[in-house]
Amino acid sequence: MEQKLARLKTLLAEVVDLNAAAALLGWDQQTYMPAGGTEARGNQLGTIQSISHIKFTSDEVGKLLDDLVKETAGLDPDSDDARLVKVTARDYEKASRIPPEFVAEFALITTRAHEAWTEARAKSEFPIFRPHLEKIVEMGKQFISFFPAADHPYDILLDQFEPGMKTAEVKGIFEALRPRQVELLRAITSRPQVDDAFLHLDYPEKEQWDFGVDVVTRFGYDWKRGRQDKAVHPFTTNFSINDVRITTRFEPGSGVSALFSTMHEAGHAMYEQGINLAYERSPLAGGGSLAIHESQSRMWENLVGRSLPFWEHFYPRFKELFPSQLGNVDLKSFYKGINKVNPSFIRVEADEATYNMHIMLRLELEMAVTESKVMVKDLPELWNSKMEEFLGIIPPNNAKGVLQDVHWSSGLMGYFSTYALGNLVSAQLWEKISQDIPDLPDQIRQGRFDSLLHWLHEKVHLHGRKYEPQELVQKITGSKIDAAPYLRYLQGKFGEIYGL
Amino acid sequence: MEQKLARLKTLLAEVVDLNAAAALLGWDQQTYMPAGGTEARGNQLGTIQSISHIKFTSDEVGKLLDDLVKETAGLDPDSDDARLVKVTARDYEKASRIPPEFVAEFALITTRAHEAWTEARAKSEFPIFRPHLEKIVEMGKQFISFFPAADHPYDILLDQFEPGMKTAEVKGIFEALRPRQVELLRAITSRPQVDDAFLHLDYPEKEQWDFGVDVVTRFGYDWKRGRQDKAVHPFTTNFSINDVRITTRFEPGSGVSALFSTMHEAGHAMYEQGINLAYERSPLAGGGSLAIHESQSRMWENLVGRSLPFWEHFYPRFKELFPSQLGNVDLKSFYKGINKVNPSFIRVEADEATYNMHIMLRLELEMAVTESKVMVKDLPELWNSKMEEFLGIIPPNNAKGVLQDVHWSSGLMGYFSTYALGNLVSAQLWEKISQDIPDLPDQIRQGRFDSLLHWLHEKVHLHGRKYEPQELVQKITGSKIDAAPYLRYLQGKFGEIYGL
Repeated sequence: MEQKLARLKTLLAEVVDLNAAAALLGWDQQTYMPAGGTEARGNQLGTIQSISHIKFTSDEVGKLLDDLVKETAGLDPDSDDARLVKVTARDYEKASRIPPEFVAEFALITTRAHEAWTEARAKSEFPIFRPHLEKIVEMGKQFISFFPAADHPYDILLDQFEPGMKTAEVKGIFEALRPRQVELLRAITSRPQVDDAFLHLDYPEKEQWDFGVDVVTRFGYDWKRGRQDKAVHPFTTNFSINDVRITTRFEPGSGVSALFSTMHEAGHAMYEQGINLAYERSPLAGGGSLAIHESQSRMWENLVGRSLPFWEHFYPRFKELFPSQLGNVDLKSFYKGINKVNPSFIRVEADEATYNMHIMLRLELEMAVTESKVMVKDLPELWNSKMEEFLGIIPPNNAKGVLQDVHWSSGLMGYFSTYALGNLVSAQLWEKISQDIPDLPDQIRQGRFDSLLHWLHEKVHLHGRKYEPQELVQKITGSKIDAAPYLRYLQGKFGEIYGL
Repeated sequence: MEQKLARLKTLLAEVVDLNAAAALLGWDQQTYMPAGGTEARGNQLGTIQSISHIKFTSDEVGKLLDDLVKETAGLDPDSDDARLVKVTARDYEKASRIPPEFVAEFALITTRAHEAWTEARAKSEFPIFRPHLEKIVEMGKQFISFFPAADHPYDILLDQFEPGMKTAEVKGIFEALRPRQVELLRAITSRPQVDDAFLHLDYPEKEQWDFGVDVVTRFGYDWKRGRQDKAVHPFTTNFSINDVRITTRFEPGSGVSALFSTMHEAGHAMYEQGINLAYERSPLAGGGSLAIHESQSRMWENLVGRSLPFWEHFYPRFKELFPSQLGNVDLKSFYKGINKVNPSFIRVEADEATYNMHIMLRLELEMAVTESKVMVKDLPELWNSKMEEFLGIIPPNNAKGVLQDVHWSSGLMGYFSTYALGNLVSAQLWEKISQDIPDLPDQIRQGRFDSLLHWLHEKVHLHGRKYEPQELVQKITGSKIDAAPYLRYLQGKFGEIYGL
């Protein structure tokens, strides 16, 4: 067994290296690559991903896994080796269904699609992106066809990001959530609106950048093992547990969007930086699922970064940096301003009370195109009509509508729900944290985040991909993913802000 | 034959993609990678380079080449296909001698060595770098042992960069050159020294950066297919004919070193950008040899960038950018200042009349460690004594001595001579260009470089790796690499500046 395990680890390390190289090709593409590099980049990603795929799905890996699944049966099922075999066998079962040619073609197509999306978004012209999106949807259907029929075809897409989660389950959670969130939203909009005009002034980029860097340094993001760059759509990526990079973007006329984006991405990044170093170059390095990942980013962005204790500590410095913008704005007004509930167009800038609506919209659209109930060409219109239905507003252009997110251009279909699930998990963990660290608000008020990061490190980060998401949440909180804590959190926070 | 050629091209394209990914891993390592990423980067480079090596030296490639060498015998020997087979067969013959484990280990060792060198150079502490350099020298000897005995063991190292060139040949050229260059240097130093104090003031980085960008834009560097970043040691790299990147560095207290570095790297980059696009993803993409490559970079840096006509055009703008530094400096004084001949420590900042001395020193040291006549631990002292012998100066510390160049840390032994050969070729080409474009100085005086770039494009760039260096120089100039034009150039230029 020892020898087989060692051999498996050697083979997997090579695959991890290839995936890291592909991740760097992707990072570069979204940060620094000149436009001329697009075609070649597609080929490079195609080649690397296809070699990685071939190596991972090799007969040798399959045979080793077959043997090791049996031979590790006697081990502690929670031991690293037993879990490595279990997780890898799950990945293998999925990956071996996908033909290498599909992987290479998908890489090529998404590289071109990403470039087209960037242009389409800049010009707000959907037709530039449309043929690429059509190909991606087509390939999504082809992807589904490689798997045995599921309850819903969309299950196959979802399962890539949220292992074990079913479409019906997610829809169930969303359907329970939506009326309560709509009810809260109605109550809020019946109250006098808070003023956040001071946030929509010209805030110099350099000060924003520096403040964001300071904040996430205090959170505990390790710059010796990371860096921040600008990207059209902020993301976190990593090439090692010791090289985890974040990106941010500046929105003209916004004083905090880059800041919250930095906090959000740092939340993802501290997760990756916190994984057991023993998992380096193995499939156990990485997040438990995208919802678990998002629970970390949303926690640092919202439960910490949009909290009153946080700003009790940081607001004096922030105000000093932007005296002309914030000279007349006191802490309470600022706090209300950054938590203003207002149906708006851009998901990543949505407030906590409306955010999930954006997700539900995307879920409906993705399910519809996957089932061929809607054509890609009709998405802009459908997007706008759903926006009106869900949030009562219509985007003025496609850049603020159907073109706003990078995900589809990267071939990510089935991904969005994990954002909403992440919100739920963040609140669920937070209730547990609040029991374990009762004086956390005081610590945050003093600008101290070490206990919080330590808790997350021990309970969540260290484990990497060892546990499935529901398993991990159960292990930590005693129950599966549950919407109640998030609703309690929203009601408490916005009840106080809007005097409900 | 057609089918075999197509299959060979498919296999080679994959290898080129892998090499491009490795190049990006290298670019990132030298520009943006956080220190924490070092270990993982070494593994990634090792994995990618070893897969590339295994794929390139596969039996299938070998068999195809064997067949195609015969089957293309009937083609025009200068046709792309005939040359592709010839060049690839040459590469294959070399590569197949190197075991894959060597390639992987070498990648790992040089990644660590690069990191150690960066630190060693910053602290000017040779012992930090020494064990890494010892390993690299050891591996250099191992590398040599994979090949049949040559006239001189160093031939094997040299041949990696300058196909067909022998150590004795290079030494011959250098020995013919050295007394003439020393003679010129004596004549120059017997004359009153020119003043260049105005260059060693504080020049703001941003203006330097912007001016450099403007200049290379005028040269014809295509930013849609490239970009510039900062690096400890400036270099050019590419991941496609359509993605060719340059780097530069700023030296405190120098107004022009970043500028000349930018021109130099742009010279390399325009070569790569100018290669026949039909060669994309094939072994024909790339420079004919390092000497040919360096002939391009040195031409733009020196024969253009340090010429009087160039500054007749650009000096008024340059002066405007730096009024406090250059307010009292007229064009002629500036021109003399940037061409001041002065034995100095740093190779990349050496003037044209002393530059080759730096190369000869490195050649002697590399030959000595390769032959085990000198130990790595003794290199700092030997470096300093050779500097005294060749240039009459002793570096005040190792950062300005043995630690100054990145090459050894990247495993590049046998590389330096190509710089001096490049100088010779640049002057040789320039004499031909001056016949073909008699009014070139007038064009440069008007800030026009299109005829020059067009000439280089047609005669040099387009061909990529089709021709061996001596073959190409012969084809263009009618003779092999020859020191005489460079000596004529130096004598003419410095004779005038120093009134000899």
